[in-house]
Formats: sequence, C-alpha cells, structure tokens
Amino acid sequence: MSYQKSDDSTLLHAGKTISMTQPYTLTIATAAEQMRTGQLSPVELMHSCLDRLDQLEPRLQAWVTVDRDGALSAAQRCETEMTQGQHRGPLHGIPIGLKDIFLTAGMKTTMGSAIYANFVPDYDATSVRLLKEAGAIILGKAQTTEFAALAPSPTHNPWILEHTPGGSSSGSAAAVAAQMCFGALGSQTYGSTIRPAAYCGCVGLKPTFGRISTYGVYPLSGSLDHVGIFSRTVTDMALLLQVLAGEDQNDPASAAQLVPNYSSALTNPEPPRIGLVREFFLEKADDETRQHIEIVVDQFSQAGAKIEEVHLPDSFKGAPEAHFNMMFVESAFSHSEVYEQYKARYSPQMQDLIEKGRKISGVDYLETQRHQHLFRDEMDTLCRTVDILLTPATPAPAPKGFTTTGDPTFNGPATFSGLPSLGLPSGLSKGGLPLSIQLMGAAFSEENLLAVGKWCEEVLAFSHTPSMA
Amino acid sequence: MSYQKSDDSTLLHAGKTISMTQPYTLTIATAAEQMRTGQLSPVELMHSCLDRLDQLEPRLQAWVTVDRDGALSAAQRCETEMTQGQHRGPLHGIPIGLKDIFLTAGMKTTMGSAIYANFVPDYDATSVRLLKEAGAIILGKAQTTEFAALAPSPTHNPWILEHTPGGSSSGSAAAVAAQMCFGALGSQTYGSTIRPAAYCGCVGLKPTFGRISTYGVYPLSGSLDHVGIFSRTVTDMALLLQVLAGEDQNDPASAAQLVPNYSSALTNPEPPRIGLVREFFLEKADDETRQHIEIVVDQFSQAGAKIEEVHLPDSFKGAPEAHFNMMFVESAFSHSEVYEQYKARYSPQMQDLIEKGRKISGVDYLETQRHQHLFRDEMDTLCRTVDILLTPATPAPAPKGFTTTGDPTFNGPATFSGLPSLGLPSGLSKGGLPLSIQLMGAAFSEENLLAVGKWCEEVLAFSHTPSMA
Repeated sequence: MSYQKSDDSTLLHAGKTISMTQPYTLTIATAAEQMRTGQLSPVELMHSCLDRLDQLEPRLQAWVTVDRDGALSAAQRCETEMTQGQHRGPLHGIPIGLKDIFLTAGMKTTMGSAIYANFVPDYDATSVRLLKEAGAIILGKAQTTEFAALAPSPTHNPWILEHTPGGSSSGSAAAVAAQMCFGALGSQTYGSTIRPAAYCGCVGLKPTFGRISTYGVYPLSGSLDHVGIFSRTVTDMALLLQVLAGEDQNDPASAAQLVPNYSSALTNPEPPRIGLVREFFLEKADDETRQHIEIVVDQFSQAGAKIEEVHLPDSFKGAPEAHFNMMFVESAFSHSEVYEQYKARYSPQMQDLIEKGRKISGVDYLETQRHQHLFRDEMDTLCRTVDILLTPATPAPAPKGFTTTGDPTFNGPATFSGLPSLGLPSGLSKGGLPLSIQLMGAAFSEENLLAVGKWCEEVLAFSHTPSMA
Repeated sequence: MSYQKSDDSTLLHAGKTISMTQPYTLTIATAAEQMRTGQLSPVELMHSCLDRLDQLEPRLQAWVTVDRDGALSAAQRCETEMTQGQHRGPLHGIPIGLKDIFLTAGMKTTMGSAIYANFVPDYDATSVRLLKEAGAIILGKAQTTEFAALAPSPTHNPWILEHTPGGSSSGSAAAVAAQMCFGALGSQTYGSTIRPAAYCGCVGLKPTFGRISTYGVYPLSGSLDHVGIFSRTVTDMALLLQVLAGEDQNDPASAAQLVPNYSSALTNPEPPRIGLVREFFLEKADDETRQHIEIVVDQFSQAGAKIEEVHLPDSFKGAPEAHFNMMFVESAFSHSEVYEQYKARYSPQMQDLIEKGRKISGVDYLETQRHQHLFRDEMDTLCRTVDILLTPATPAPAPKGFTTTGDPTFNGPATFSGLPSLGLPSGLSKGGLPLSIQLMGAAFSEENLLAVGKWCEEVLAFSHTPSMA
C-alpha cells in the first residue's frame, strides 16, 4: 500500500474557500474508512490538519500545546502499521484534541492555570488511554478556562472572532468546529460542553454521569464533572463514545452498565416522539432563539416526529441553586490544598467561587445531594415518557466579548441530573452565529439519544462551516 | 403433630436457677430444629419467652413495646402451619426483638424520642420484612437511646443492674443477653452494636456497610448507619445474617455482592491467623481488659492460632475525629426538618450533637469522606494480610451508672471503614461483668468472620449467663 500526497494542500494557505477534498474536512467515519482502504495516508491527513491549524491558530488561539512532532511521528507509525496490515482500532490515525485538564503522560497539562504552567503528568487519563488504544493520535492540548471554571481562555469564536467560543471547553469546541482536528474531549460541570459546542457550531455530547471515566481529569466538582465529547457529526460521536464508554476501576463513580453498540443504533432512525420543554427554556431564550426553536419543531413535525409539550418536574425548583452550591463546595474541596498554597495565583473569579464554597455548611451541602437525587429520579421519569426532550442549547448565540464565556443555564439540568444530553447545530442567527438544539434522554440511553440525534441531523441538514474571514 | 406444654415454666416465677430445659434458654438453631421435628411448640416457646420477659422486665426495662397478643397469635399461626406441614423459613416461630428505630407496620416506633411517642409506621423496614418472611415473630420494640444517639435509655445491665447496658441498642442487647428473645436487631453508627453486646455479654455483629439494607431504619448518619445483630451464639448469628443480607432496591447504599451460605462456613473452622492490634486498643484499655486480652491470645495460640501483631494504617490518624465530624453533619442533616419544628423536645446531648454538625463546613465534610475512603482501603488491605484482626471490644467493662452509655472508641474503626466486626463474650471481670473480644475482617468477608468467630467461641467456651439476682 502506498499513498499519494494531495496537492490540494497548497490551497490552504490562500485563505480562500477550501476544496471539499481536503482531508481535514472529512468526518472520522470517512477518514477512517479511506485510511483502511488505502485511499488516504495518515501522514497526509495529519499534515492537512496541521496546515489548517497553522493557518487559523494565530487568530483562533484554540491550543495550549500542539504536539507537532509527536503527532507526525505517530501518523508515520500508523502509516507503517497499515502498510503491514495492522490496525489499532476504529480511530487508527485520527487526530484528536484534548482539553488541557486531561492528564497526558509526558505532555504538559496546564489546567489553564499559571500554577500548572510546567506540569507534565506521568500517566494518561483513562479516556486518553482509551483513545490511544483505539488508534487516535493526540494532536495537542486545547485551551480551557482556568481549572475548567469561569475565567475565560484566550480562544476566539471561529464564526466571528470577536465573540466568545463559550467555556470551559473553549479550545476543544473551537478546534473541532474550525476543522483543526476530528474530535476533541472536553468536560461539563455545569454547561462546559454543550454550550461551547453550540456557540461554535459543532456536535457536543455530555453522556450519563458515570458513562465515561473521569480518572485523570483534573477535578472541579466530583458529583458533577462529566467527560464531554466534540465532533462534527452524530456518526462520529457514536464512534468516539464507543471507544470512551465503560466502567473503570480507577473511577469509583464510573458505571458498570454494559456498553451497547452505538453505531448500529444509527441505521435508519425513526421519527421520534419529542417532548418539547417550552417552560423555562423558551421563556429565558432570546426572541431569535425562541423563534428558531419553533421553526425547528415545525420542521421535525413535518418530517414525522410527534411533538408533545412536557413540563419540568417539581424538583426543578431550586435545582440551579442547589447545582451551584454543590459545585462551589466541591470546587473548594478539590482545590483546598493547592489554593492554600497558591491562592494569589488564582483568578479573582476562581477565588470568589472557592470562597463561596468554603462558606456553605455541610448540612446545606447534603441538602444539595438530596435535591440532586430527587431531581435525577424525576427527570429520568420525565425522559421516559417520550423518546427525547428538546430545548434550545443556549438562551442566545455566543455573546460578543471575552469577559464571560456565556450563559450555561440551559445545560445545567442535564448536568445536575446526570442525564445524557446532545447538542446539535440547527441554524445560523442573523448575525451569522450558530444556533443549536439540545436533546436530553433517560439515564444510560445514549444509544437512543444518538439515534434521535442522527434523525434530527438529517432533517436539519446543517452544513455551514465557519469562514474564519 | 401435637405439643405437650412443659411444666417447667412454673420454675420461672421463683427467681431461682433456671432449668436448661426451659425453651427460652435454647439457641435459634436448636429451637428451630425442635419445632421442625415436633419436639417443641411455637406457642410453648413464645410463652416461655413472655414469662421470662414478665419476670425480668420490671428490673431490666429493655422494652418500649411488647406485642404480647400479636406475638402469641403469630405463634399460634406458626403452630397451625407446622401441624399442616408448612414452614415459612429458617426462623419459623423464633421470637425476635427490634430496636425501636426499625419501622414496623402497625406497631408503634418511637425512636426513643417523645416526638415520636405515638408514631405508628405503615410499612416494615426491609430487615423487618425479611425476618417476618423467614418466619420470625416480632416480640416487640426494644429500648434505644434517643434517636440512636447519646441520651441513655432506661435499660439496665442484666449482669449488674446499676451498670449501663451500653448504647445505643441498649434494649436489644439486654433482651438477648437476658434470654427474653433469641435475637434482636440494633444499629451501629459509632459503637452501638458491638459495645452493648460486649457490656451485656452476648454476640454482636456489625456487617460490612451495605450488607444489610437500612431502608426503614430511622437515619442518624447515612454514610455510617449499619444494621447490627444480637444473638447468643455465632451459629445463630449466621442464621440471622443469612436472612438479612442482600441488595435492596430501596436502599441505594445496599451492596450487590452475592450472599454466600454463612452457616456452611461454620463447619470445622480452622485455627486462624490472627492479627493482634495492641497499639491504640491495648494502650487505651484498662488493666483488667488488657490482661484479659493477653490471656485470651495465649489461649488462642495454644489452640493452634497463629498470632501476629499488626499495626494500624497511617490513615487511622485523625479517623476518630473525621468519624465524629461526619456523624455530626449527617445527623444534623437527617434531623434538620424535625429539629426545626421540635427543637425543645430534643435532649441537651442531641441538641449539642446537631448544633455541632450545623457548624461544620461542606468542605470539611467532604474531607471526612475522603478520609473515610482512604481509611476503608487501608484497613481492608490490613485485614487481608491475616484472617482476622483481634482487639478488645471495649476499653473496659460496662461502667456504673446511667449518665453515659460507655465508650464506643474501639468500635469506631470498623464503623468508619465499613468493615465487618463481630463481638464475642470472652470472660468475666472481677466485678462480674462480661469482657469481650472484637474481631474485624475485610469488606464482605462475613463468611470468614463468622467461621473465625465460631472457632474462637469454641475455644473460649464462655457459658455464663446473667443471674439477675
């Protein structure tokens, strides 16, 4: 087997419309297939991504670390293996990005904090190990807000650079949306995966709490931290989740539930029964988002979906406050030792978060746990009355400026309840920014969530990419 | 099948030495066998227990509620069933007592508090349901300290009435030791099963956290509350644990681990490898207890046991304080609503406990959890280096007076770590009070714990019973 390097790559440097034959524009599914069949070289694919990255990174600032040499030599190794008929797994040769809170053996991991500016872990997070074992190549470490909390990263929104990409998984979302890599890992403790995915116009998944091990992911809030995934399509998301899902002896919160075949669930998805949540979500959304959701719902209805309006359970009352209080206490606990030593090197936002957490009593903390368990049960019951819940992914498109990373309010319920949620780009605002829907399902129903997501994706046919003009 | 009522029962009322043929002096194993083979009538057995109870209760005060009519009609039903060849289970016709924090459908459950003086639950705790399904007859509800915490109950020690029976499961321990019933349920959040069992001279078991459902047991501290069991022999303990152990959908903390056959483990137990914990335990014990333990260890050694001295893990440092702080916070949380409403009806001790808990921060609470997990792991590892750990069950025999329920210090490590512990009477003090050993094993090793307990019981041959002179 030998590979012809494409000459199209010269086009990259012109800043012009990019030919669809550029390898970096492929999906994981297609790229993996083309590599398997010898139509695409892993080295060519990596060069394509690195060239794209070189072109856009000065403006986008999605990365803390780009492991150019490591990625290229891994691509070379993949190529050699493939010419010998060896194939590590479903992600063989696929360039992937990691939020810079995922520990990587031998690769700097900064947590978005000056305190860890030179920290090089000696082991991989479980999710990183699983990606590598499946053949993925770690392109580098993507920008994160400080400690995956509030203080913005330097990353810009690939659609309009003056807007936030969202947070805390800012770099992961921007890099995937800007087609620098094929997928990326992030995390979500309140709204840190679905929000940046929505702002940047890519697919985001926050699986059920416990579905993906958080071992080796720098903790913010142990009862709320989820590994999140960014991809460009639902099919790619199923491939990534397949590799990442499963029990991990190193993470006591990881779930023993069996991992189904996610990809096979995507074949010929049926029109779903959709539970539309107008209360809270459409009330808090801006006019454009609200109108957009109503149009999308009409579209889905015309394509055969059954739409019913559903109502949030009683325990939604007070859930956002309980969620914040739990996060404050657990963040203060996670950081207690480091904060004690390096307080001055924390941002004012992070100091404020930790100080808030320190003031909350143990009794009030246990009350947040009680609320969480009740909310999880009631939301799960609600989800089981339909195939899926539908809401806007964010109250509005990505706000202008970089003082905040936007509003995570709409992503909280799935995080606090631990139920899986999927964000899908569904249109563009008048201002040219992505609008997204959020789907939510019952616990450990990712199979169904992805199948419905695939159906919605086909109906929506969202095909825009950021111009980075 | 028909039964002859024994005339020996008249002896009961004389306060003299009791004939060994009295049914109330039997073990569960023997009584159940005699009922199965028609030698003993369930009604006769119940009368024997009720007569014993009537004789001793005025001085012992072990009971809040004696369900005389219910117990007798249940015994009559058992007898009818048996004459028809029906047999509900291994505890068919066996009179059992319940600490008055176990909810019982239709039977008053006071929690040892005036607030619940007239509370009649409408469902059974899971453990109560399991006992009933196995054929046991609930004789009544035994005295507990207020809310299974610190404020003493009116119960006396059956060996010397001026001494405490221990707490918080005061009535359960005293009733079993005084042979009013064949077994009883209690609970342990710090030292509330093993301590009263030791003070009263009966066998006590605190199984692994999660081994027995706590559903329907009034909560004190969710991460520390264990159902405890009192019996007169290790063989009876295995029978009771068999009925009670197992996962319960109503208790999220109950463990999915399979339940082995505990009784079969008791056949021909081998001399064990015993890890003797001198540090802390023998340092804090009074002279008589320390000397007693050294004598017992010699006895075990001469009987073939291998004795090695073992050392407590690093995380034992600070464990008692973490244990108390966790208990304070969780108790304050469990009681928050009732306390808000009825504060004045709580004892000063309980008010103090709750107020302490309210002052502890969420961050400090999470630190107690971290400590607990580490301690559990390290203690479990230590337990696996030998067959069993051996310590005295209490620092001294039951103290005189009723201002406290004695010192739970020695029972804390097994409770905080969640590892199973067994208390066995091992001798009498010069003052005529029981002395006991405490055995501790690895998580979910009750099978081994009981087998070692059986071996120790045979070597110790403790056969004293309280005279109630």
